[in-house]
Amino acid sequence: MSLIVVGSVAYDGVETPHGRVDRMLGGAATYIALSASYFTKVGVVAVVGEDFAKEDTDLLAGHGVDLEGLERVAGKTFFWKGKYTPDMNDRETLVTDLNVFADFQPKLPESYKSAPYLLMGNIQPGLQRGVQGQMSKLTLAGGDTMNYWIADFREELLKTIRTWDFLLINDGEARMLSGETNLKKAAAKILDMGPHTLVIKRGEYGAILFRRDSYFIVPGYLLESVFDPTGAGDCFAGGFIGYLAQQGFDIEADHVDRHELSRAVIYGSVMGSFCCEQFGVERFRTLKRSEIDARFEEFRQFTTF
Amino acid sequence: MSLIVVGSVAYDGVETPHGRVDRMLGGAATYIALSASYFTKVGVVAVVGEDFAKEDTDLLAGHGVDLEGLERVAGKTFFWKGKYTPDMNDRETLVTDLNVFADFQPKLPESYKSAPYLLMGNIQPGLQRGVQGQMSKLTLAGGDTMNYWIADFREELLKTIRTWDFLLINDGEARMLSGETNLKKAAAKILDMGPHTLVIKRGEYGAILFRRDSYFIVPGYLLESVFDPTGAGDCFAGGFIGYLAQQGFDIEADHVDRHELSRAVIYGSVMGSFCCEQFGVERFRTLKRSEIDARFEEFRQFTTF
Repeated sequence: MSLIVVGSVAYDGVETPHGRVDRMLGGAATYIALSASYFTKVGVVAVVGEDFAKEDTDLLAGHGVDLEGLERVAGKTFFWKGKYTPDMNDRETLVTDLNVFADFQPKLPESYKSAPYLLMGNIQPGLQRGVQGQMSKLTLAGGDTMNYWIADFREELLKTIRTWDFLLINDGEARMLSGETNLKKAAAKILDMGPHTLVIKRGEYGAILFRRDSYFIVPGYLLESVFDPTGAGDCFAGGFIGYLAQQGFDIEADHVDRHELSRAVIYGSVMGSFCCEQFGVERFRTLKRSEIDARFEEFRQFTTF
Repeated sequence: MSLIVVGSVAYDGVETPHGRVDRMLGGAATYIALSASYFTKVGVVAVVGEDFAKEDTDLLAGHGVDLEGLERVAGKTFFWKGKYTPDMNDRETLVTDLNVFADFQPKLPESYKSAPYLLMGNIQPGLQRGVQGQMSKLTLAGGDTMNYWIADFREELLKTIRTWDFLLINDGEARMLSGETNLKKAAAKILDMGPHTLVIKRGEYGAILFRRDSYFIVPGYLLESVFDPTGAGDCFAGGFIGYLAQQGFDIEADHVDRHELSRAVIYGSVMGSFCCEQFGVERFRTLKRSEIDARFEEFRQFTTF
């Protein structure tokens, strides 16, 4: 196994201006794993209930995702339901039924423990730390968090990210975590908290990669229509870490090409943009690696001067 | 003369979270001309009142801006006063005293009429057309407009931009003019209205250059603090057209390098970013061409992957 992903595997109900789906496969770990599967061998650590459908495990397995770490327990799978605003830049959560996820205690199969790459989706920071503690040969570890943990679990979160290589959050979260409105100042403060690499996601406006000595900005891909932005941030994370895992990226190694991190941000952006093209995980039923590489080249075209 | 700029020369009162200035030099033509003056020889067509200060004509003249087209008439100079929101992405207009600008009828000195480049700042579309009609040897002409003209002078505006080479507007104006929310679709519709080149400005998020067969996106420059965004869009316009004038850009010529337009967008972004660093036109009292070129290279650094 090359990359371990921990997070939620869930069912989602989503309403956007383009339509409504009452129940479909979702969850951060699902999106991260599907996205990363185009680049590297992924194992998932998550929990689902007895209602989790065979067609959904089949979709993951069909992408080569290892499911030994996908625990199945009595009860129902985590369910989330949300509705997007007309411009799709914001959403309202209508239902959050944690179900079996409420007692999630991530346990790693033996075969996962020596994987070099780890992506921790947005879950309680203590659980993220617990997963990282079970891994013995990490080359690169990082993940996501959200406003809830920043506001109410701050100390726990700070303790957790102190040992991370990278943190992936959105601009609002970066401002909240740092207490700085200006993103450059916010980034400097966050890099003092532990991670050597910070990626700030800006939704339709793209993303910024910050390191102590440099930064890289990519604009968002111009989609002709955004069907459903659910999971786009997780697909970004999957593309980012998936590409680095594929390249065998090692920040400690001599002569690390810092442009690799920029290219990882582009692959993240590419995967996030595909995710928005259809509802839920639908786009990943047909997406081919060649389309991914073609869009990567498109990014080069429209950003080169 | 290489570039003619028409628009307002005004006094502004501005309040931002960083402070307040009750009266300072402003106006679209002022910002455009100062910005473009770093690249090419500029002549200004505008009107001021008897109160227009010698130190303000001196600032323009000190940048090599030709003022033969700056008419001085009885009355007071156009005065505008505005207050920015705390995040500085929006502003409220508190005072608009048109004064001598109310009867502005742009008249071009003979020496301006054969200039190859024309930038029409945001004024009544009929006046913009009147200026363009007085010029005999145009290579490239275009300009800016705003929500007011789009909403209430639509037919007049459409008639005016039909013969423009380029239009520079912000994202909200592009949506309003086209009736399309999606920027790619909006751009396609606007390119059908006449201009072969459209630049959509997105404030802190940068800008997009659209042509029929391609587009180019640049992210915004990350400033550590934005002192006063007044005039940033006009400085963008000045850098854009100024660079093209300096290069002798001619869209009709064989082998036009389409990347020249992208580089013009970068110079526009560079000039807009400098403008925000101090109140009003202050930054242009000290700005050197070498700083401009250094920031251009910085754009290359943080966008290359």
